[in-house]
Amino acid sequence: MSQFTSTPVPAAFAALANKLADSGGAILRQYFRKRIDVISKSDESPVTQADRECEAQMRTLIKEAYPDHGIAGEEYGIENRDAEYLWVLDPLDGTKAFVTGRPLFGILIALLHRGTPILGIIDMPILKDRWIGLVGQPTTLNGQPVAARACANLTDAYISSISPHIFDADSLARFERVRKQAKLTTYGGDCYQYAMVATGFLDLVIEDSLVYYDYLALQPILEGAGGIITDWHGKKLTMDSGPRIIAAGDKAAHRMALALLNS
Amino acid sequence: MSQFTSTPVPAAFAALANKLADSGGAILRQYFRKRIDVISKSDESPVTQADRECEAQMRTLIKEAYPDHGIAGEEYGIENRDAEYLWVLDPLDGTKAFVTGRPLFGILIALLHRGTPILGIIDMPILKDRWIGLVGQPTTLNGQPVAARACANLTDAYISSISPHIFDADSLARFERVRKQAKLTTYGGDCYQYAMVATGFLDLVIEDSLVYYDYLALQPILEGAGGIITDWHGKKLTMDSGPRIIAAGDKAAHRMALALLNS
Repeated sequence: MSQFTSTPVPAAFAALANKLADSGGAILRQYFRKRIDVISKSDESPVTQADRECEAQMRTLIKEAYPDHGIAGEEYGIENRDAEYLWVLDPLDGTKAFVTGRPLFGILIALLHRGTPILGIIDMPILKDRWIGLVGQPTTLNGQPVAARACANLTDAYISSISPHIFDADSLARFERVRKQAKLTTYGGDCYQYAMVATGFLDLVIEDSLVYYDYLALQPILEGAGGIITDWHGKKLTMDSGPRIIAAGDKAAHRMALALLNS
Repeated sequence: MSQFTSTPVPAAFAALANKLADSGGAILRQYFRKRIDVISKSDESPVTQADRECEAQMRTLIKEAYPDHGIAGEEYGIENRDAEYLWVLDPLDGTKAFVTGRPLFGILIALLHRGTPILGIIDMPILKDRWIGLVGQPTTLNGQPVAARACANLTDAYISSISPHIFDADSLARFERVRKQAKLTTYGGDCYQYAMVATGFLDLVIEDSLVYYDYLALQPILEGAGGIITDWHGKKLTMDSGPRIIAAGDKAAHRMALALLNS
Protein backbone atom coordinates (compact mmCIF):
# COMPACT_ATOMS: atom_id res chain seq x y z
CA MET A 1 0.00 0.00 0.00
CA SER A 2 1.42 3.38 -0.94
CA GLN A 3 0.64 6.08 1.58
CA PHE A 4 -0.21 8.41 -1.29
CA THR A 5 -3.25 6.37 -2.29
CA SER A 6 -4.63 6.10 1.25
CA THR A 7 -7.99 7.39 2.34
CA PRO A 8 -7.43 10.75 4.03
CA VAL A 9 -7.47 10.72 7.83
CA PRO A 10 -10.74 12.37 8.97
CA ALA A 11 -10.08 15.95 10.06
CA ALA A 12 -12.00 15.33 13.28
CA PHE A 13 -9.46 12.68 14.30
CA ALA A 14 -6.57 15.08 13.71
CA ALA A 15 -8.40 17.77 15.67
CA LEU A 16 -8.87 15.39 18.59
CA ALA A 17 -5.21 14.34 18.45
CA ASN A 18 -4.17 17.99 18.69
CA LYS A 19 -6.53 18.48 21.62
CA LEU A 20 -5.00 15.49 23.40
CA ALA A 21 -1.51 16.93 22.96
CA ASP A 22 -2.64 20.39 24.09
CA SER A 23 -4.20 19.16 27.31
CA GLY A 24 -1.53 16.55 28.01
CA GLY A 25 1.24 19.08 27.52
CA ALA A 26 -0.41 21.51 29.95
CA ILE A 27 -0.29 18.80 32.61
CA LEU A 28 3.35 17.87 32.01
CA ARG A 29 4.43 21.51 32.13
CA GLN A 30 2.97 21.82 35.64
CA TYR A 31 5.34 19.16 36.96
CA PHE A 32 8.48 19.76 34.92
CA ARG A 33 11.54 21.00 36.80
CA LYS A 34 9.60 21.12 40.04
CA ARG A 35 11.43 19.81 43.07
CA ILE A 36 9.60 16.99 44.82
CA ASP A 37 9.59 19.04 48.03
CA VAL A 38 7.32 21.63 46.39
CA ILE A 39 4.72 19.09 45.24
CA SER A 40 2.48 17.98 48.08
CA LYS A 41 -0.34 16.42 46.13
CA SER A 42 0.44 12.80 47.00
CA ASP A 43 3.22 10.43 47.91
CA GLU A 44 3.97 9.84 44.25
CA SER A 45 6.94 11.38 42.51
CA PRO A 46 6.29 14.33 40.19
CA VAL A 47 7.06 12.17 37.18
CA THR A 48 4.56 9.49 38.19
CA GLN A 49 1.89 12.10 38.86
CA ALA A 50 2.58 13.82 35.54
CA ASP A 51 2.58 10.56 33.60
CA ARG A 52 -0.70 9.28 35.05
CA GLU A 53 -2.60 12.55 34.97
CA CYS A 54 -1.58 13.14 31.38
CA GLU A 55 -2.70 9.72 30.17
CA ALA A 56 -5.93 9.78 32.21
CA GLN A 57 -6.82 13.16 30.74
CA MET A 58 -6.19 11.97 27.18
CA ARG A 59 -8.27 8.82 27.75
CA THR A 60 -11.17 10.88 29.05
CA LEU A 61 -11.12 13.10 25.96
CA ILE A 62 -11.01 10.11 23.59
CA LYS A 63 -13.90 8.38 25.36
CA GLU A 64 -16.01 11.53 25.27
CA ALA A 65 -15.45 11.93 21.53
CA TYR A 66 -15.35 8.30 20.36
CA PRO A 67 -16.62 5.82 22.95
CA ASP A 68 -16.28 2.98 20.45
CA HIS A 69 -12.55 3.55 19.81
CA GLY A 70 -9.94 1.46 21.55
CA ILE A 71 -7.17 2.95 23.71
CA ALA A 72 -3.74 1.53 24.54
CA GLY A 73 -1.39 3.45 26.81
CA GLU A 74 1.70 2.99 28.88
CA GLU A 75 0.08 3.67 32.24
CA TYR A 76 -3.41 2.15 32.04
CA GLY A 77 -3.13 -0.75 29.60
CA ILE A 78 -5.33 -1.64 26.65
CA GLU A 79 -9.10 -1.13 26.40
CA ASN A 80 -11.14 -2.38 23.46
CA ARG A 81 -8.09 -3.60 21.54
CA ASP A 82 -10.12 -5.02 18.64
CA ALA A 83 -11.88 -1.75 17.81
CA GLU A 84 -11.57 -0.49 14.23
CA TYR A 85 -9.69 2.57 15.54
CA LEU A 86 -7.15 2.22 18.32
CA TRP A 87 -5.42 5.19 19.98
CA VAL A 88 -1.93 4.47 21.28
CA LEU A 89 -0.64 6.85 23.94
CA ASP A 90 2.70 7.44 25.57
CA PRO A 91 1.93 10.30 27.95
CA LEU A 92 5.59 10.87 28.83
CA ASP A 93 8.22 9.49 26.52
CA GLY A 94 11.51 10.23 28.28
CA THR A 95 10.92 9.85 31.99
CA LYS A 96 14.67 9.94 32.70
CA ALA A 97 14.89 13.23 30.83
CA PHE A 98 11.90 14.53 32.80
CA VAL A 99 13.32 13.62 36.22
CA THR A 100 16.73 15.06 35.38
CA GLY A 101 15.25 18.36 34.25
CA ARG A 102 15.83 17.99 30.50
CA PRO A 103 13.14 19.34 28.18
CA LEU A 104 13.61 16.63 25.53
CA PHE A 105 10.71 14.45 26.71
CA GLY A 106 7.52 14.30 24.69
CA ILE A 107 3.99 13.03 24.31
CA LEU A 108 3.42 10.37 21.66
CA ILE A 109 -0.02 9.84 20.15
CA ALA A 110 -0.81 7.34 17.41
CA LEU A 111 -4.08 6.39 15.81
CA LEU A 112 -4.22 2.91 14.27
CA HIS A 113 -6.84 1.89 11.71
CA ARG A 114 -7.17 -1.89 11.69
CA GLY A 115 -3.62 -2.12 13.02
CA THR A 116 -1.98 0.42 10.68
CA PRO A 117 -0.78 3.76 12.11
CA ILE A 118 -2.56 6.49 10.13
CA LEU A 119 -1.82 9.44 12.43
CA GLY A 120 1.14 10.24 14.64
CA ILE A 121 2.05 13.15 16.91
CA ILE A 122 5.32 13.95 18.63
CA ASP A 123 4.63 16.84 20.98
CA MET A 124 7.40 18.55 22.96
CA PRO A 125 5.53 20.43 25.71
CA ILE A 126 8.47 22.55 26.89
CA LEU A 127 9.91 23.38 23.47
CA LYS A 128 6.38 23.98 22.12
CA ASP A 129 7.21 21.96 19.03
CA ARG A 130 4.68 19.57 17.54
CA TRP A 131 5.18 17.20 14.62
CA ILE A 132 2.09 15.69 13.00
CA GLY A 133 2.11 12.88 10.49
CA LEU A 134 -1.09 11.94 8.64
CA VAL A 135 -0.89 9.06 6.21
CA GLY A 136 -0.80 10.39 2.65
CA GLN A 137 0.14 13.93 3.68
CA PRO A 138 3.43 15.74 4.25
CA THR A 139 4.54 15.76 7.88
CA THR A 140 4.42 19.17 9.55
CA LEU A 141 6.26 20.86 12.42
CA ASN A 142 4.09 23.56 13.94
CA GLY A 143 2.09 23.64 10.73
CA GLN A 144 5.06 23.86 8.31
CA PRO A 145 6.11 20.91 6.14
CA VAL A 146 9.37 19.20 7.06
CA ALA A 147 11.52 16.73 5.14
CA ALA A 148 14.23 14.24 5.97
CA ARG A 149 17.56 14.74 4.23
CA ALA A 150 19.56 12.60 1.82
CA CYS A 151 22.34 10.45 3.22
CA ALA A 152 23.77 8.08 0.66
CA ASN A 153 26.77 6.93 2.73
CA LEU A 154 26.96 5.75 6.31
CA THR A 155 30.25 7.60 6.68
CA ASP A 156 28.27 10.84 6.32
CA ALA A 157 25.57 9.82 8.78
CA TYR A 158 24.69 11.55 12.03
CA ILE A 159 23.31 8.75 14.20
CA SER A 160 21.66 8.69 17.60
CA SER A 161 20.33 6.46 20.32
CA ILE A 162 18.94 7.26 23.73
CA SER A 163 21.76 5.43 25.55
CA PRO A 164 24.24 2.62 24.95
CA HIS A 165 22.70 0.90 27.99
CA ILE A 166 19.39 0.12 26.24
CA PHE A 167 21.18 -2.59 24.26
CA ASP A 168 22.01 -6.11 25.36
CA ALA A 169 25.40 -7.63 24.44
CA ASP A 170 24.10 -8.90 21.10
CA SER A 171 22.33 -5.73 20.01
CA LEU A 172 25.16 -3.51 21.25
CA ALA A 173 27.66 -5.36 19.07
CA ARG A 174 25.34 -4.86 16.09
CA PHE A 175 24.73 -1.18 16.90
CA GLU A 176 28.47 -0.59 17.28
CA ARG A 177 29.09 -1.82 13.75
CA VAL A 178 26.94 1.02 12.45
CA ARG A 179 28.14 3.60 14.96
CA LYS A 180 31.78 3.05 14.06
CA GLN A 181 30.98 3.80 10.41
CA ALA A 182 28.99 6.94 11.18
CA LYS A 183 30.35 10.47 11.11
CA LEU A 184 28.85 11.59 14.42
CA THR A 185 26.95 9.96 17.30
CA THR A 186 24.73 11.58 19.90
CA TYR A 187 22.93 10.06 22.87
CA GLY A 188 19.79 11.18 24.63
CA GLY A 189 16.68 12.75 23.19
CA ASP A 190 13.99 10.05 23.25
CA CYS A 191 11.25 10.80 20.70
CA TYR A 192 12.94 14.08 19.76
CA GLN A 193 15.59 12.05 17.94
CA TYR A 194 12.98 10.70 15.51
CA ALA A 195 11.57 14.19 15.00
CA MET A 196 15.07 15.32 14.04
CA VAL A 197 15.29 12.55 11.42
CA ALA A 198 11.97 13.77 10.00
CA THR A 199 13.31 17.34 9.96
CA GLY A 200 16.67 16.63 8.35
CA PHE A 201 19.11 17.00 11.25
CA LEU A 202 19.77 13.34 12.03
CA ASP A 203 20.17 10.48 9.57
CA LEU A 204 19.65 7.37 11.69
CA VAL A 205 18.18 6.43 15.05
CA ILE A 206 18.86 2.86 16.15
CA GLU A 207 17.38 1.60 19.40
CA ASP A 208 16.56 -1.48 21.41
CA SER A 209 14.13 -2.02 24.32
CA LEU A 210 11.24 -0.13 22.72
CA VAL A 211 7.57 -0.96 23.30
CA TYR A 212 4.69 -0.36 20.88
CA TYR A 213 3.71 3.00 22.40
CA ASP A 214 7.31 4.20 21.90
CA TYR A 215 7.32 3.76 18.11
CA LEU A 216 3.85 3.51 16.49
CA ALA A 217 3.31 7.30 16.46
CA LEU A 218 6.64 7.73 14.71
CA GLN A 219 5.74 5.86 11.52
CA PRO A 220 3.35 8.41 9.93
CA ILE A 221 5.77 11.20 10.90
CA LEU A 222 8.81 9.54 9.36
CA GLU A 223 6.99 8.37 6.22
CA GLY A 224 5.33 11.75 5.62
CA ALA A 225 8.79 13.34 5.71
CA GLY A 226 10.26 10.93 3.17
CA GLY A 227 11.94 8.74 5.77
CA ILE A 228 11.41 5.20 6.96
CA ILE A 229 11.04 3.35 10.27
CA THR A 230 11.04 -0.42 10.68
CA ASP A 231 12.24 -3.17 12.94
CA TRP A 232 15.84 -4.37 12.55
CA HIS A 233 14.72 -6.80 9.83
CA GLY A 234 13.20 -4.02 7.72
CA LYS A 235 9.60 -5.01 8.49
CA LYS A 236 6.81 -2.45 8.84
CA LEU A 237 5.77 -1.67 12.40
CA THR A 238 2.90 -3.29 14.28
CA MET A 239 1.94 -3.56 17.95
CA ASP A 240 4.34 -6.52 18.17
CA SER A 241 7.40 -5.15 16.30
CA GLY A 242 9.55 -4.20 19.29
CA PRO A 243 11.97 -4.06 20.88
CA ARG A 244 14.54 -3.26 18.14
CA ILE A 245 13.67 -0.29 15.91
CA ILE A 246 15.54 1.72 13.28
CA ALA A 247 14.56 5.00 11.63
CA ALA A 248 16.32 6.66 8.71
CA GLY A 249 15.85 9.79 6.67
CA ASP A 250 17.19 8.15 3.52
CA LYS A 251 16.16 4.66 2.42
CA ALA A 252 19.71 3.99 1.18
CA ALA A 253 21.12 4.67 4.66
CA HIS A 254 18.41 2.45 6.13
CA ARG A 255 19.38 -0.39 3.80
CA MET A 256 23.08 -0.07 4.57
CA ALA A 257 22.49 0.10 8.32
CA LEU A 258 20.23 -2.98 8.22
CA ALA A 259 22.94 -4.88 6.34
CA LEU A 260 25.46 -4.05 9.08
CA LEU A 261 23.01 -4.77 11.91
CA ASN A 262 22.36 -8.23 10.47
CA SER A 263 25.82 -9.10 9.18
CA MET B 1 39.41 31.29 50.81
CA SER B 2 35.69 31.01 51.55
CA GLN B 3 33.52 32.44 48.83
CA PHE B 4 31.45 34.15 51.50
CA THR B 5 34.27 36.47 52.48
CA SER B 6 35.10 37.46 48.91
CA THR B 7 34.96 40.97 47.59
CA PRO B 8 31.68 41.37 45.70
CA VAL B 9 31.92 41.16 41.93
CA PRO B 10 31.42 44.67 40.51
CA ALA B 11 27.88 45.08 39.20
CA ALA B 12 29.22 46.48 35.94
CA PHE B 13 31.01 43.20 35.25
CA ALA B 14 27.82 41.22 35.80
CA ALA B 15 25.91 43.65 33.55
CA LEU B 16 28.48 43.17 30.79
CA ALA B 17 28.32 39.39 31.18
CA ASN B 18 24.55 39.51 30.74
CA LYS B 19 24.96 41.71 27.68
CA LEU B 20 27.42 39.20 26.18
CA ALA B 21 24.96 36.36 26.70
CA ASP B 22 22.08 38.42 25.26
CA SER B 23 23.88 39.30 22.08
CA GLY B 24 25.57 35.91 21.68
CA GLY B 25 22.28 34.10 22.12
CA ALA B 26 20.60 36.23 19.47
CA ILE B 27 23.29 35.12 17.01
CA LEU B 28 23.01 31.42 17.84
CA ARG B 29 19.22 31.50 17.53
CA GLN B 30 19.55 32.74 13.94
CA TYR B 31 21.42 29.60 12.92
CA PHE B 32 19.76 26.92 15.07
CA ARG B 33 17.75 24.26 13.27
CA LYS B 34 18.37 25.92 9.94
CA ARG B 35 19.21 23.59 7.09
CA ILE B 36 22.54 24.36 5.45
CA ASP B 37 20.74 24.76 2.12
CA VAL B 38 18.91 27.82 3.44
CA ILE B 39 22.07 29.60 4.64
CA SER B 40 23.96 31.19 1.78
CA LYS B 41 26.21 33.53 3.69
CA SER B 42 29.44 31.63 3.11
CA ASP B 43 30.87 28.21 2.50
CA GLU B 44 31.04 27.55 6.23
CA SER B 45 28.57 25.31 8.00
CA PRO B 46 25.85 26.99 10.08
CA VAL B 47 27.52 25.80 13.27
CA THR B 48 30.88 27.27 12.31
CA GLN B 49 29.27 30.56 11.35
CA ALA B 50 27.26 30.64 14.57
CA ASP B 51 30.27 29.80 16.72
CA ARG B 52 32.57 32.41 15.22
CA GLU B 53 30.05 35.24 14.97
CA CYS B 54 28.99 34.68 18.56
CA GLU B 55 32.54 34.79 19.94
CA ALA B 56 33.56 37.73 17.74
CA GLN B 57 30.56 39.71 18.94
CA MET B 58 31.32 38.99 22.61
CA ARG B 59 34.98 39.96 22.14
CA THR B 60 33.99 43.26 20.56
CA LEU B 61 31.71 44.10 23.49
CA ILE B 62 34.40 43.25 26.05
CA LYS B 63 37.04 45.35 24.29
CA GLU B 64 34.68 48.31 24.05
CA ALA B 65 33.94 48.15 27.78
CA TYR B 66 37.29 47.01 29.19
CA PRO B 67 40.15 47.30 26.71
CA ASP B 68 42.63 46.27 29.42
CA HIS B 69 40.90 42.95 30.20
CA GLY B 70 42.18 39.70 28.74
CA ILE B 71 40.02 37.38 26.62
CA ALA B 72 40.33 33.64 26.04
CA GLY B 73 37.91 31.85 23.78
CA GLU B 74 37.48 28.63 21.89
CA GLU B 75 37.51 30.15 18.43
CA TYR B 76 40.01 33.02 18.55
CA GLY B 77 42.56 32.01 21.19
CA ILE B 78 43.94 34.02 24.10
CA GLU B 79 44.61 37.76 24.12
CA ASN B 80 46.29 39.54 27.04
CA ARG B 81 46.40 36.41 29.18
CA ASP B 82 48.24 38.09 32.07
CA ALA B 83 45.65 40.82 32.59
CA GLU B 84 44.16 41.15 36.09
CA TYR B 85 40.76 40.21 34.68
CA LEU B 86 40.42 37.50 32.04
CA TRP B 87 37.15 36.67 30.27
CA VAL B 88 36.83 33.05 29.20
CA LEU B 89 34.30 32.37 26.45
CA ASP B 90 32.78 29.27 24.94
CA PRO B 91 30.42 30.72 22.35
CA LEU B 92 28.80 27.37 21.59
CA ASP B 93 29.16 24.60 24.13
CA GLY B 94 27.55 21.60 22.50
CA THR B 95 28.28 21.78 18.79
CA LYS B 96 27.07 18.19 18.26
CA ALA B 97 23.77 19.11 19.90
CA PHE B 98 23.57 22.21 17.71
CA VAL B 99 24.17 20.37 14.43
CA THR B 100 21.71 17.61 15.34
CA GLY B 101 18.96 20.12 16.16
CA ARG B 102 18.97 19.70 19.95
CA PRO B 103 18.40 22.83 22.03
CA LEU B 104 20.69 21.74 24.89
CA PHE B 105 23.70 23.73 23.71
CA GLY B 106 24.73 26.85 25.59
CA ILE B 107 27.02 29.84 25.88
CA LEU B 108 29.59 29.75 28.68
CA ILE B 109 31.08 32.95 30.05
CA ALA B 110 33.57 33.13 32.91
CA LEU B 111 35.42 36.05 34.41
CA LEU B 112 38.66 35.22 36.18
CA HIS B 113 40.32 37.57 38.67
CA ARG B 114 44.01 36.72 38.94
CA GLY B 115 43.17 33.19 37.80
CA THR B 116 40.16 32.56 40.03
CA PRO B 117 36.69 32.35 38.44
CA ILE B 118 34.54 35.01 40.14
CA LEU B 119 31.64 35.06 37.67
CA GLY B 120 30.07 32.35 35.57
CA ILE B 121 27.14 32.22 33.16
CA ILE B 122 25.45 29.25 31.54
CA ASP B 123 23.04 30.63 28.97
CA MET B 124 20.65 28.40 27.01
CA PRO B 125 19.59 30.56 24.06
CA ILE B 126 16.73 28.34 22.89
CA LEU B 127 15.33 27.46 26.30
CA LYS B 128 15.78 31.09 27.42
CA ASP B 129 17.28 29.88 30.68
CA ARG B 130 20.26 31.66 32.20
CA TRP B 131 22.21 30.65 35.30
CA ILE B 132 24.50 33.24 36.87
CA GLY B 133 27.05 32.53 39.58
CA LEU B 134 28.84 35.39 41.32
CA VAL B 135 31.39 34.49 43.94
CA GLY B 136 29.93 35.09 47.41
CA GLN B 137 26.32 35.19 46.20
CA PRO B 138 23.62 32.57 45.65
CA THR B 139 23.44 31.28 42.09
CA THR B 140 20.32 32.32 40.19
CA LEU B 141 18.30 30.90 37.31
CA ASN B 142 16.48 33.68 35.48
CA GLY B 143 16.85 35.81 38.60
CA GLN B 144 15.61 33.23 41.11
CA PRO B 145 17.98 31.48 43.54
CA VAL B 146 18.63 27.80 42.91
CA ALA B 147 20.22 25.15 45.08
CA ALA B 148 21.79 21.75 44.57
CA ARG B 149 20.19 18.86 46.43
CA ALA B 150 21.46 16.48 49.08
CA CYS B 151 22.72 13.08 47.96
CA ALA B 152 24.39 11.15 50.77
CA ASN B 153 24.67 7.83 48.92
CA LEU B 154 25.88 7.05 45.44
CA THR B 155 23.13 4.46 45.11
CA ASP B 156 20.65 7.36 45.16
CA ALA B 157 22.60 9.44 42.64
CA TYR B 158 21.40 10.59 39.24
CA ILE B 159 24.58 10.89 37.19
CA SER B 160 25.32 12.20 33.75
CA SER B 161 27.99 12.60 31.11
CA ILE B 162 27.84 13.92 27.58
CA SER B 163 28.78 10.56 26.05
CA PRO B 164 30.66 7.39 26.95
CA HIS B 165 32.90 8.09 23.97
CA ILE B 166 34.59 11.13 25.60
CA PHE B 167 36.50 8.74 27.85
CA ASP B 168 39.65 6.80 27.05
CA ALA B 169 39.98 3.19 28.22
CA ASP B 170 41.42 4.24 31.59
CA SER B 171 38.91 6.97 32.36
CA LEU B 172 35.98 4.89 31.11
CA ALA B 173 36.84 2.10 33.54
CA ARG B 174 36.95 4.66 36.36
CA PHE B 175 33.69 6.32 35.27
CA GLU B 176 31.99 2.92 35.02
CA ARG B 177 32.78 2.18 38.67
CA VAL B 178 30.70 5.20 39.67
CA ARG B 179 28.00 4.68 37.05
CA LYS B 180 27.35 1.11 38.16
CA GLN B 181 26.69 2.34 41.70
CA ALA B 182 24.38 5.13 40.61
CA LYS B 183 20.60 4.95 40.51
CA LEU B 184 20.18 6.48 37.05
CA THR B 185 22.45 7.60 34.21
CA THR B 186 21.73 10.01 31.39
CA TYR B 187 23.89 11.05 28.45
CA GLY B 188 23.88 14.27 26.46
CA GLY B 189 23.29 17.79 27.64
CA ASP B 190 26.70 19.52 27.62
CA CYS B 191 26.70 22.53 29.97
CA TYR B 192 23.02 21.99 30.78
CA GLN B 193 24.03 18.98 32.86
CA TYR B 194 26.00 21.20 35.24
CA ALA B 195 23.11 23.64 35.44
CA MET B 196 20.90 20.73 36.50
CA VAL B 197 23.33 19.85 39.31
CA ALA B 198 23.13 23.47 40.49
CA THR B 199 19.33 23.30 40.33
CA GLY B 200 18.88 20.00 42.15
CA PHE B 201 17.92 17.59 39.36
CA LEU B 202 21.22 15.80 38.87
CA ASP B 203 23.70 14.71 41.53
CA LEU B 204 26.90 14.10 39.62
CA VAL B 205 28.41 14.98 36.25
CA ILE B 206 31.65 13.17 35.44
CA GLU B 207 33.48 13.97 32.22
CA ASP B 208 36.75 13.65 30.38
CA SER B 209 38.17 15.60 27.41
CA LEU B 210 37.18 19.04 28.72
CA VAL B 211 39.14 22.22 28.01
CA TYR B 212 39.34 25.32 30.24
CA TYR B 213 36.52 27.16 28.45
CA ASP B 214 34.23 24.15 29.05
CA TYR B 215 34.47 24.27 32.85
CA LEU B 216 35.71 27.59 34.31
CA ALA B 217 32.28 29.26 34.06
CA LEU B 218 30.75 26.36 35.94
CA GLN B 219 32.64 26.86 39.21
CA PRO B 220 30.89 30.03 40.49
CA ILE B 221 27.54 28.52 39.45
CA LEU B 222 28.08 25.22 41.26
CA GLU B 223 29.60 26.81 44.37
CA GLY B 224 26.89 29.45 44.65
CA ALA B 225 24.30 26.65 44.62
CA GLY B 226 26.01 24.70 47.40
CA GLY B 227 27.71 22.24 45.04
CA ILE B 228 31.29 21.59 44.06
CA ILE B 229 33.32 21.16 40.88
CA THR B 230 36.92 19.96 40.74
CA ASP B 231 39.28 17.81 38.73
CA TRP B 232 39.26 14.05 39.38
CA HIS B 233 41.77 14.54 42.20
CA GLY B 234 39.52 16.98 44.04
CA LYS B 235 41.60 20.04 43.16
CA LYS B 236 40.07 23.46 42.49
CA LEU B 237 39.82 24.47 38.86
CA THR B 238 42.35 26.56 36.95
CA MET B 239 43.07 27.14 33.26
CA ASP B 240 45.14 23.93 33.37
CA SER B 241 42.81 21.58 35.27
CA GLY B 242 41.37 19.60 32.35
CA PRO B 243 40.58 17.27 30.86
CA ARG B 244 38.89 15.26 33.67
CA ILE B 245 36.25 17.14 35.63
CA ILE B 246 33.62 16.15 38.22
CA ALA B 247 30.72 18.21 39.58
CA ALA B 248 28.46 17.25 42.47
CA GLY B 249 25.53 18.80 44.26
CA ASP B 250 26.50 17.22 47.57
CA LYS B 251 30.08 17.21 48.85
CA ALA B 252 29.55 13.72 50.32
CA ALA B 253 28.65 12.36 46.88
CA HIS B 254 31.68 14.15 45.43
CA ARG B 255 33.96 12.51 48.01
CA MET B 256 32.54 9.03 47.39
CA ALA B 257 32.74 9.40 43.63
CA LEU B 258 36.37 10.61 43.83
CA ALA B 259 37.24 7.59 45.94
CA LEU B 260 35.81 5.26 43.29
CA LEU B 261 37.39 7.17 40.39
CA ASN B 262 40.80 6.82 42.04
CA SER B 263 40.49 3.34 43.56
